[in-house]
This record gives sequence, C-alpha cells and structure tokens, in this order.
Amino acid sequence: MIHPQQTSGMPATKYVPFQEQIAVHLPDRTWPDQVMTKAPRWCAVDLRDGNQALIDPMDAERKMRMFKLLVKMGYKEIEVGFPSASQTDFDFCRELIDGGHIPDDVTIQVLTQCRDHLVERTFDAIRGSKQAIVHFYNSTSVLQRRVVFDLPEEGIIDIALQGARLCKKLEETIPETTVYYEYSPESYTGTELEFAVRVCNEVIAVIDPTPDHKMIVNLPATVEMATPNVYADSIEWMIRHLDRRESLVVSLHPHNDRGEGVAAAELGYLAGADRIEGCLFGNGERTGNVCLVTLGMNLYSQGIDPQVDFSDMAEIRRTVEYCNQLPVHERHPWGGDLVYTAFSGSHQDAIKKGFEDMERRGRAAGKTVDELDWGVPYLPIDPHDIGRSYEAVVRVNSQSGKGGSAYLLKAEHGLDLPRRLQMEFSQVVQRRADEQGGEVTAKELWSIFRDEYLPAKPGKRNDWGRFTPVSHTLVSAGDGRDHITAVMLDHGQEITVDGYGNGPIAAFIDALSTVGVDVRVLDYSEHALSSGGDAKAAAYVECAVADRVLWGVGMHSSIVRASLTAVLSAVNRAERDAASA
Amino acid sequence: MIHPQQTSGMPATKYVPFQEQIAVHLPDRTWPDQVMTKAPRWCAVDLRDGNQALIDPMDAERKMRMFKLLVKMGYKEIEVGFPSASQTDFDFCRELIDGGHIPDDVTIQVLTQCRDHLVERTFDAIRGSKQAIVHFYNSTSVLQRRVVFDLPEEGIIDIALQGARLCKKLEETIPETTVYYEYSPESYTGTELEFAVRVCNEVIAVIDPTPDHKMIVNLPATVEMATPNVYADSIEWMIRHLDRRESLVVSLHPHNDRGEGVAAAELGYLAGADRIEGCLFGNGERTGNVCLVTLGMNLYSQGIDPQVDFSDMAEIRRTVEYCNQLPVHERHPWGGDLVYTAFSGSHQDAIKKGFEDMERRGRAAGKTVDELDWGVPYLPIDPHDIGRSYEAVVRVNSQSGKGGSAYLLKAEHGLDLPRRLQMEFSQVVQRRADEQGGEVTAKELWSIFRDEYLPAKPGKRNDWGRFTPVSHTLVSAGDGRDHITAVMLDHGQEITVDGYGNGPIAAFIDALSTVGVDVRVLDYSEHALSSGGDAKAAAYVECAVADRVLWGVGMHSSIVRASLTAVLSAVNRAERDAASA
Repeated sequence: MIHPQQTSGMPATKYVPFQEQIAVHLPDRTWPDQVMTKAPRWCAVDLRDGNQALIDPMDAERKMRMFKLLVKMGYKEIEVGFPSASQTDFDFCRELIDGGHIPDDVTIQVLTQCRDHLVERTFDAIRGSKQAIVHFYNSTSVLQRRVVFDLPEEGIIDIALQGARLCKKLEETIPETTVYYEYSPESYTGTELEFAVRVCNEVIAVIDPTPDHKMIVNLPATVEMATPNVYADSIEWMIRHLDRRESLVVSLHPHNDRGEGVAAAELGYLAGADRIEGCLFGNGERTGNVCLVTLGMNLYSQGIDPQVDFSDMAEIRRTVEYCNQLPVHERHPWGGDLVYTAFSGSHQDAIKKGFEDMERRGRAAGKTVDELDWGVPYLPIDPHDIGRSYEAVVRVNSQSGKGGSAYLLKAEHGLDLPRRLQMEFSQVVQRRADEQGGEVTAKELWSIFRDEYLPAKPGKRNDWGRFTPVSHTLVSAGDGRDHITAVMLDHGQEITVDGYGNGPIAAFIDALSTVGVDVRVLDYSEHALSSGGDAKAAAYVECAVADRVLWGVGMHSSIVRASLTAVLSAVNRAERDAASA
Repeated sequence: MIHPQQTSGMPATKYVPFQEQIAVHLPDRTWPDQVMTKAPRWCAVDLRDGNQALIDPMDAERKMRMFKLLVKMGYKEIEVGFPSASQTDFDFCRELIDGGHIPDDVTIQVLTQCRDHLVERTFDAIRGSKQAIVHFYNSTSVLQRRVVFDLPEEGIIDIALQGARLCKKLEETIPETTVYYEYSPESYTGTELEFAVRVCNEVIAVIDPTPDHKMIVNLPATVEMATPNVYADSIEWMIRHLDRRESLVVSLHPHNDRGEGVAAAELGYLAGADRIEGCLFGNGERTGNVCLVTLGMNLYSQGIDPQVDFSDMAEIRRTVEYCNQLPVHERHPWGGDLVYTAFSGSHQDAIKKGFEDMERRGRAAGKTVDELDWGVPYLPIDPHDIGRSYEAVVRVNSQSGKGGSAYLLKAEHGLDLPRRLQMEFSQVVQRRADEQGGEVTAKELWSIFRDEYLPAKPGKRNDWGRFTPVSHTLVSAGDGRDHITAVMLDHGQEITVDGYGNGPIAAFIDALSTVGVDVRVLDYSEHALSSGGDAKAAAYVECAVADRVLWGVGMHSSIVRASLTAVLSAVNRAERDAASA
C-alpha cells in the first residue's frame, strides 16, 4: 500500500483558519463566469511600497531612474513616495515637481497616514504639481484595532474621517493642483466586510466624488490571508455595497504572502475592480507586492494589450535590479533567465516542431510570425516580443533528447539533421553530458558534432580518420551510369580507386569496395546551407558499414564532394568504433 | 484629469485568448464554497520534473541528498526520475533499490512515455522495489496533436492504451513489486475536456483499478494557460465525468507560467482533487512546478497540519539550493530571506505591539506562545515555528519609524524605551540612515544610541559632555525631603553641588541650579535590565533644559545613580546641541 502521511509535529493548532476570523459569504458570486477583455488601470508603487521594503532604499538617483522607467513603460499613475515619513521621499517629490520631471499625462500619487501633521506635510510635498493623488489610509483590521490602536470601531472611523476632512481643507491651499483622492482601509483582508464598507462609505461621503472627478477606493491585501477566490468574493461583495459606485475607482493592492498575489489581482479584477497597484517583478514588503510584469504579460499572452510596453524586458529587468538591488529570480514569470528555456528532450522536440509549423503556416499564408496565431508547445508567448531570441530557447543537458541538439544545430549552423541522425547524435551528446555534467552550450554542441562527424580541423589531412578525400574525377556515361576516380589518403598513403554506379555515391561505394570497405547506403539527404552562388551544401548519409549502421556528414561547396565526404565520414566513424572496441 | 493609458504597440493580437481555445463551462461549480480542512496527498517531483529543468542536473550524490531530505520531511510519494530517458536517472533508481535506501513507508514513482522500449526500460528500473508508481503519459493537447504528432484523436488514445496494456503485461514480470499506476494526459490544460476525460476513462478501463488498489489520474497544467479558477472549474468538471471515481486518486500538477501555480493547486484541491505534485521552492521547467513549501505552509498558517515537517526551513533551503544550484529568492513565500522582515515604521510598530499583546495574553492565561491563537500584524505565522527568530524580524532603515529601533533595542539590549523617547530616537536614526543610506544593523543602532545618550566609553571621564558624574551622597531627612551632595566634573573641573527635593532627582535638579543649569523633569521611567542581585537598571528622564525638551538615559546597578545619570545625559545633550548650533 501507499502509506499515509504522518503528522508533522508542528504546532499548527495555534493558527485560526481565515474563515473563522472573517466571514466572506457570497454564494451568488458572478466573477467566476467573467473573462478579462481589457487592461485595468495600473498604478506602480515601486517608489513607495517597493522602496520601503528594500534593505538599501533608493537614493535620489535610483529613484529618478525608476520613475523614468515607469514613465517610459507607459504607467500613468505612479506612487512616488511617503513624503511625510521620510525626508528622502519628500525631497524626491519636490525634485520631480520643481525639476519638471512629470510628463503632463502622468499623475503622481503620495501616501500618508491620516494624522494631521503628516497630511499637512503631504500637501507641502505636492504643492506646484499639475495634478496628484493623495492616498490616505488607516488600519482597520480586527487585529490592529485591538493590539495597535486599542480603539472601538467609531474611533477607527474617526481617524479616517479626520484625515479626509483635513485633505479637503488643505486642497484649497493649493488651487493650482488638481487633487484626487485614494483611500485605503489598510489591512483590509483582516477587516470584517461590513466594517470595511462602512468606513469606506463614510470617507466617500466626506470626499464627495463625482463621475467626472472620481475617488479611488483601494482594498489592499496588506497581508494575503486566504485563497484568491475569497479575495475575489470580498471584492464583489464590497462593490455591491459601496455607495456612489459611478464616482469610484475600485482598486486592488495585493501582497503575496501565500504566493497568490497575481491570482488575487486577476480574480479581484474579474470581480469588478477597475485598477491594480503593484511593483515590477513583485518587489515589496515581505513576499512583495503583486508583480506588474506578470499581470501585464498574462494579459498580453491572452491577446489583450496591457497598455504597458514590455518589449525591452532586459532593460526593464536591468533597471529594476539596479534600483532595488535585488535580483529577479531565474524562474520569475515572463522575465526570468530560464523561463523560455526547455531542457527536456520531449519539450525541445515539440518546440522545434512548433517553430517549423509556424514557418510552414507563415509561408503558406504569406504572413509574418506576428500575423499568425501563436502556437508553439511550452512557449506561451513568442520570446521575440520581449526581446528574447529563439536561439536562447533551447539548452541541452543530459536530460535532453534529440530535439534540443537538432534545434541548436539548425539555428546556429543551418544544419537540418534527418530524424534518425538526430537520434544518433543525441546519444553522443547525452553520453558526453552524462560524463561531464552540466549544460552543453551551443558551442560545445558544435564541437561534439564536429569531433564526431567532421574532420576536427578541415584541411588537416590526418584528422579524418582512416580515409581523407583528396580529389575525384566523375564521368557520367551515356547509359546513366557514373564512373568515379577518387584520390584519397588511406592511413596517410595516397591511393586511387575507381568504381561505377547509378550516381556518384553508388560509384564511390563501388570504388571503396576495391580496398575492402563494405558499405551500403540506407538513407540519404542533402540541403543547401545558404543561398547564392557560393552556397555550401550539407549531405547526410546513413550507411551500413559491415554490421554497423551509422550516419556520416559532409559539408562542401560541391554537392558531390559533400556526399562523398559524408560516406567517408560514416566509414571513418565505423573504423574508429572498431578500433576503440 | 488622470490620463488614460495608451496602447503598448506590442503585437498582442497574435495570441488567442484561452476561452477561444478550450471551452470550460461549469456555471454550477461548487468549489468556491469549499474550504480546506486537511492536507492533500503530496508527491514530490524534485528529482524528475525539477531535475530535468536544471542547468546542471543533479549527479548521484546530489540526487541522494534530495531524496533523503524529502524522506526526512515526510513525503511518502517521491518521483525519482525518468529512468528510460537518462542513464543517470536509471542508475539512481537502481541505487535506491539495490542500496536499500527506500524506507518501507515511502513509494517511489518513475515517469515514462508510452513507447514500448521506454516502458520496458522503466520496469527494469523498478525491479526489486517493494512498491512503485509507474507514471506513464502522452501529450493530448490540441496543439501537440497537430504539430508534434500529426495524429487524430484515436491515434492519441492508442498511444495511451498501448502504454497501459504494456504496463499491465510487464507488471507480471516483477511479481515481487506492488505496482501502482499514474496516468497523465500531458498538456492537459490545452486539451478539450471531453477528449481529456475520454482518454482517461479508456486508460482507466485498461488499468482496471479498485478502491483497494487505486489508480492516480494526474491532470497537469503542463503550461499554465488561464486564471486558476478556470483550472479549478476544469478539475471539478473532470471529476464529475471520470469513471470509477472511488478507485481513483485525482492528482494535480500545476506549473507556474502565469505565476498562479499555487492558486491553481489550491483551487483545484477545493474542486475535489486528492493529491498534488510539485517541487520544493518551485523548481521545474521554465517558471517551475508549483512550490510544495508554499502549499504546505499555506495550509499550516490556516491551522492545518501539512503532514510535512517545515520546522527546519534553513536546512531545507540549504539542501535545495545545493542540489538545484539555484537560489531561493529573498521574497519567496515562507522561506525567503526577507519575508519575516518589516522595514516600514508603522509595520514595525504594529509587530512590536503584537508581540507585546501575545506576551500579555500568555502571562494572563499562563500559556506559552504555542498555546495561544497567533495574532501579530504583518506576520502570518510565528517565525519560530520554522526556526527563524524574532530578532531577525525587524530591520531598520531610513523608511523605518520608531517601532523598529525600539524593538531592536529591547530585543538586543533589554531597553524598554518610553514612547516619546522612541520617537525622539527614531529621528536620530532616520537622520543617520538618510545620510548614510542602507540598512542600520542592530549593532549600528546600538552605537547610534550610545553616542547620543550614553558616554561612548563608560569610565572615560571626558566622553560625557559638560558634566561627568563622580560620586554622590544622598540623605533622606525625616520630613520626606532628600538632600544630595554630588561630586561631578564640569568641563573637567571637579565641583561639588548640593540641593534638596522630594526625591533624589528633584534634589539633584535643585543642586544643578546652583551652577546655572535650568532643568525641569517632565516624565520619568525606569526598569530593571535583568533579574538577580547585580541587576542593572535603566532610567529614562524627559527634561526641559532651558527651552529644549529632550530625553536622557542612564544605566547603572544603582537605580539612583542611573536616574541622576539620565538627567545629566539630557543636560549634556542640550549643551551639545547648543554648542553645535
């Protein structure tokens, strides 16, 4: 029997299940039947929630680089700091405004707690900007009300309303700035929905938004506490109960404590939210904010324009790594080093076939890759779209089958190996990879291929093995039979052989039989390696040499010479095997 | 106005939305109303799906270390390789069996394609084991059927059935091994549900499982193609349509292309699946397999025993990083370096209060932390449970408020700073952090604190500032008034002052007034730093010195001396400020 798992011994009972903390009841939910059709409004909070979670927070120069990156990518709402809590943030906010760095179509957002002196300082920070979002918050969760504030519900609501009222008052002191508001019941996921909606509705009444001048109500998963369907249920519930929906922008702000921030954002968006706050590559407190790259590219892979430009993923990643001084993981969705890489043989094989199918369909329809429906197994998107190359897609190691090697030989050297040759060669590669460990690079692969099938250094006569081709004369007789006279080195000694056959290869084989070489051709293919007059050709010949079946490869500008060389390659390989056995 | 986002210019139209590729229609879904109550059956595929995605696949030694880690943690089903595809995997499988490394309650699993020679080699690999799961698969997706296999549905089913039949036949050749079966319609997420269930049901009929000898039907998100609710819908649909449910173990195998593997696993589990395959820290092809650490700890944080032991997270992580030669990211849920760290002031403050509340509740109830309901803001679990310490929880940088510094001073030095002193000190720290950039370590924090409030080197007389205490005599008169005679250095000159007051501090302040120092005490607190006879005390005094309000700190084994020193600390700070202004 398959034995049952045993208790871990860890003290799990001290944790209260989410559903026993907060009731979210929405049996008539509608979000699971929705699909996404357009991008949400994005707000990038890298300079605030991201920055405050860094071991080494950004200095002014790194902040400016991040800001410019976000602007360049197309984000229109950018939270630039918590100016009342940090002099660095305040100064940066002033520099953005006073230095004229904010494009007309970009709105900065600043965070503040609801305390008077912090709100006042916040308005000092945005003075002179054309427009700004003042994002005020207070914590509303059951836990924080008890252990941090020790206040009843009314006291918590008062904090929010006092902040809202002061904002409205201070707004009049900066008439040159169009001020928008965002309110967050912080630690929303730990707040009873009835209380969360009550706080929000009271704040909405004070802010008094209109359809033409909306207010943002942001519902943060400050700590991710449950599965993402529960978050989505809660968002749908809130939207049903929030006042003046037509004057609101409902915003999500997921964190990733359970590794489900992306799902929470997407399901919450299906549940009716309008806007998502997050950070590039998921920087942020603890496990991070939801990743804006993943969300944007997820939409993109479904045929939806994310309205943010990810086409230079390398530059985005480089800048983020520089500003945050944190790496992007090798397996981070869409941007990690390894995410367009297939090591396994069956995957590589399928990818290769997928690319070939795309090419075929493109040729048939006279269309480019971008005009066809994308369809390559194991590659959810075309890596080209984000500046990655096909060449990097396939890597080869001891787990790889024929597909990876074949793909690389084709991509890098134009060689289109016949299927059985792919299989033969993959065994050669696998043996080598098993022995050496580690990845076989494209360069090493080529070197393995050359060692096995071609003279290591063309022109060095002794590198061929038993036979080295020197020259040949081919005469096609009137009866369709060819006569070949071939000069070769046999163990270094020049010999001349001749033979007849219905074609140069057959004739050459006949000639070889005169020096005791028993070879039959089983399969054969050839193709040009490039176009134009000086094009080289590649020839692949499957031979039975005595009792061994094996392939030979030849490359030459003369297709005949390439073919004969391929036969010699097979013969030499057989001799080498026999010698080493 | 907040300007609308603009088109990215990326060629999104070439991607077909998932719902136009595969129909998943389940309006009467029931999974969103379910909650998790117990751990699923786990299967760790680190040695197979994880290994095949490594730049440098594991050698025998690393494989064995991974296997032993998985066994030690409590995994009972472990996929150990793809023995027919790699000599290394085959050899490792043999070593496990022949070397007697498989505990009686652990079942190994091996993967194979359905091709005859691979299946045969697979049975060679497991020969002699007590029990084993033979996991056979073939790809069933629309895309792979067309571009990889070029076969109609019947042909694809035949591949699966041929594999199943051969398995049943070969099973008879190893009667000493109890063989279980797992079948995967690979690339399930790209397969029409009707076809997927048809393939599975035909395979089930061949394998002929019973409730006492179940078969595993594994439904892999080989590529994650849609939001996780769609995967859950598909799982619930499949379970309604699979034959002989009572003889099946329905298994999930999510990948993470959209960053939603964890959510897919959890929602799929809610939808009725029994078992989940994944890898520690989410290793695996491209973006990885679903992370078993995250899934297990997510359950744990909901009060559910994961039946896998994560209590030594550092050791788990070290072994995984060694075996995979890939790092675990700083923000990886539950195991990353930064995930129990709060940099922001309000978070640190709340965490500090949460810990204090836990302590209070524990004292009141006479219980340990493990016996209380856990509740600390921003810390979903007690870091102690996985071998992390409270001390590492709070780090301080320029974004931090008073909470972080206060926490560290308490944790490292036993100092329990009054709230207004916390605020004063946090400004000192923030100024320093803003100037220097970067994190302030606990050591640096202590040095900043000492520089500001205490003599830099106790005993070095000139490090105090204007006044250095030397000695004092205190006489309590019968009227309740104290008379102090204090010897001090004033700018290095020894002086003796005396004064009267209703307590030593009042008397000392009276004495200081005789040398022109105008100081009033506004607030005062003290506490022991440790228990026992030689306990030191800490005293905190908030003083008005001329027009400045500021705190002084004193530490001494005599509580009186600590208090007087605190007053001098405040006076000296005021003098220093005046001198530098």
